[in-house]
Amino acid sequence: MRATVLHAPRDIRLDDVDDPQLQLGTDAIVRVVAACVCGSDLWPYRGLNPVNEPTRIGHEFVGVVEQVGDAVSSLTPGDFVISPFTFSDNTCALCVRGVHTSCTNGGFWGHPDKQGHATDGGQGELVRVPWADGTLVATPSQPSQEMVTQLLTLSDVFPTGHHAAVSAGVTAGSTVVVVGDGAVGLSAVLASKRLGAARVVAMSRHESRQQIARRFGADEVVAERGKEGAAAVREMLDGIGADFVLECVGTGDSMKQAMLSARPGGRIGYVGVPHDVQLNVPQMFGRNIGLAGGIAPVRGYIEELLPDVLDGSITPGDVFDLTVPLDQVADGYRAMDERTAIKTMLSL
Amino acid sequence: MRATVLHAPRDIRLDDVDDPQLQLGTDAIVRVVAACVCGSDLWPYRGLNPVNEPTRIGHEFVGVVEQVGDAVSSLTPGDFVISPFTFSDNTCALCVRGVHTSCTNGGFWGHPDKQGHATDGGQGELVRVPWADGTLVATPSQPSQEMVTQLLTLSDVFPTGHHAAVSAGVTAGSTVVVVGDGAVGLSAVLASKRLGAARVVAMSRHESRQQIARRFGADEVVAERGKEGAAAVREMLDGIGADFVLECVGTGDSMKQAMLSARPGGRIGYVGVPHDVQLNVPQMFGRNIGLAGGIAPVRGYIEELLPDVLDGSITPGDVFDLTVPLDQVADGYRAMDERTAIKTMLSL
Repeated sequence: MRATVLHAPRDIRLDDVDDPQLQLGTDAIVRVVAACVCGSDLWPYRGLNPVNEPTRIGHEFVGVVEQVGDAVSSLTPGDFVISPFTFSDNTCALCVRGVHTSCTNGGFWGHPDKQGHATDGGQGELVRVPWADGTLVATPSQPSQEMVTQLLTLSDVFPTGHHAAVSAGVTAGSTVVVVGDGAVGLSAVLASKRLGAARVVAMSRHESRQQIARRFGADEVVAERGKEGAAAVREMLDGIGADFVLECVGTGDSMKQAMLSARPGGRIGYVGVPHDVQLNVPQMFGRNIGLAGGIAPVRGYIEELLPDVLDGSITPGDVFDLTVPLDQVADGYRAMDERTAIKTMLSL
Repeated sequence: MRATVLHAPRDIRLDDVDDPQLQLGTDAIVRVVAACVCGSDLWPYRGLNPVNEPTRIGHEFVGVVEQVGDAVSSLTPGDFVISPFTFSDNTCALCVRGVHTSCTNGGFWGHPDKQGHATDGGQGELVRVPWADGTLVATPSQPSQEMVTQLLTLSDVFPTGHHAAVSAGVTAGSTVVVVGDGAVGLSAVLASKRLGAARVVAMSRHESRQQIARRFGADEVVAERGKEGAAAVREMLDGIGADFVLECVGTGDSMKQAMLSARPGGRIGYVGVPHDVQLNVPQMFGRNIGLAGGIAPVRGYIEELLPDVLDGSITPGDVFDLTVPLDQVADGYRAMDERTAIKTMLSL
């Protein structure tokens, strides 16, 4: 089969690799229908995370079950499935508490499972899925092509934005500021409105991203960044700042902007993978600013979010502004790297 | 009048000072009935916070209203009142959101108010109270001497323990670990049980403190500290750690112990004033550990907690294991400094 391999920074290729085989009775093999590129894929792509050897990549995909192991009970070949960006058994003490990203038996696409068998990256034709019953969520019927685009966001980007909002504790009637206008930040705008936020401020300098933010329900847009941006936010929100701030970037600067945008007693939900983020604890303490979030336990959210996607009441797939066939994956990465695309979908 | 003055590290005296006078119509003068020494008073007492000049000290007191300004409407001379450890108007945009410690017009005892008038420390005979209607909470009737001891805890220590639990988000049926067996930590045990926690683990090496923790509802006690203590906690709690951890010390070591005691997806409520606390953000992110808390907005909690104290269903005053008259204030500080007393009450 063909699968995406990162050979070195900015050297990404579609290579011929071995087809995956069932290794355990709890496995399934999924034929990928659509995948996408994540902002976090850009860290190794840009060489900001080290790339020491050719590495399979990608962790967001939907597809059709091709084969199941004999211990798989809830899936049958032909089912259309959504895969979260981590695999998990959905039964361990941490999964039942909703922290599937810390599953005792879980792991990450492209890395070996706990039994030591390699797993596939999500940007390829086939993926061996460990703990298939626990990992995959099947849709009630076969989706249309347009619906595939929407469902693909449930693999990572939309539930990650949702996790920022849930971690912060966004409530109906509250004020929310979203730092970051990437696909996750835009998803966080949509998630906040879905949870009933009264007033959502998107911080964005880019016209095309501002438009999607507005379509997702942003009530206001602030183009300034840093201290100036936070000052504009505070002035807009009773002079005190927001009840909740969703940090969807992961840099030291974006976290500082988030801290300055929160009102005393406010909460920050953060889902930007932290790179060199230092927290000023005495300042947080004095202003009672809380911080929660982390790697999004997507598996636990899919069933909650799926009905709203299926009935069309939300269209999180609007974050995709570029679709390329799998064999043009390099173009897809380049466009995101150069920020000419917000998020790239790979069709198969 | 006589009031406590910190002249230099470990040099604390009861000095003669001027009686306070009403400065503004919103002021009241309160005759202090009982005050106490806070763990945070020990930081300057020990010279860990600088003491550059003789400084009035103390911020926890209850008393009787002696005089009110002409703009005070809810209090009359003779009322028994509880004072929170900060003053606040209880009407500004931050007070109405429950963050009285960030009140636009608020401040700290012993420091000038926003109009520039000096305020008194709480460990003295009389205190001028700014924003008396907003700051003070009157009891429905005159309390007994024993009840005074209980009510005094509402000035700081019990609502601060409560704030740790509320900030973490302690829910009925949850597991809770309390780091710190000072008066605040013990109060956090009581607050957690009051909020319905199913299993509370107190981390304490001291027999007398363990006994109070048990009396306040601790289900288990762990004597080990640091990594060993956290490992013991995890083993006790399904091998994963606690849903909620309440950090009631404020050192780097205690915060690390708290982090290691929380399960993935867990929340830390912290109320120990942070001294040299560094947070490992990537680790928090990977394990989805949330952190919230800060200086406790006590004023917003008093009315909620008062009925349970008045009807005797909780007895937070059990944290006081030493009572001295005000003129022996130096002995009261020394006992807490040497940890021969958990918490010292000063009677007037």
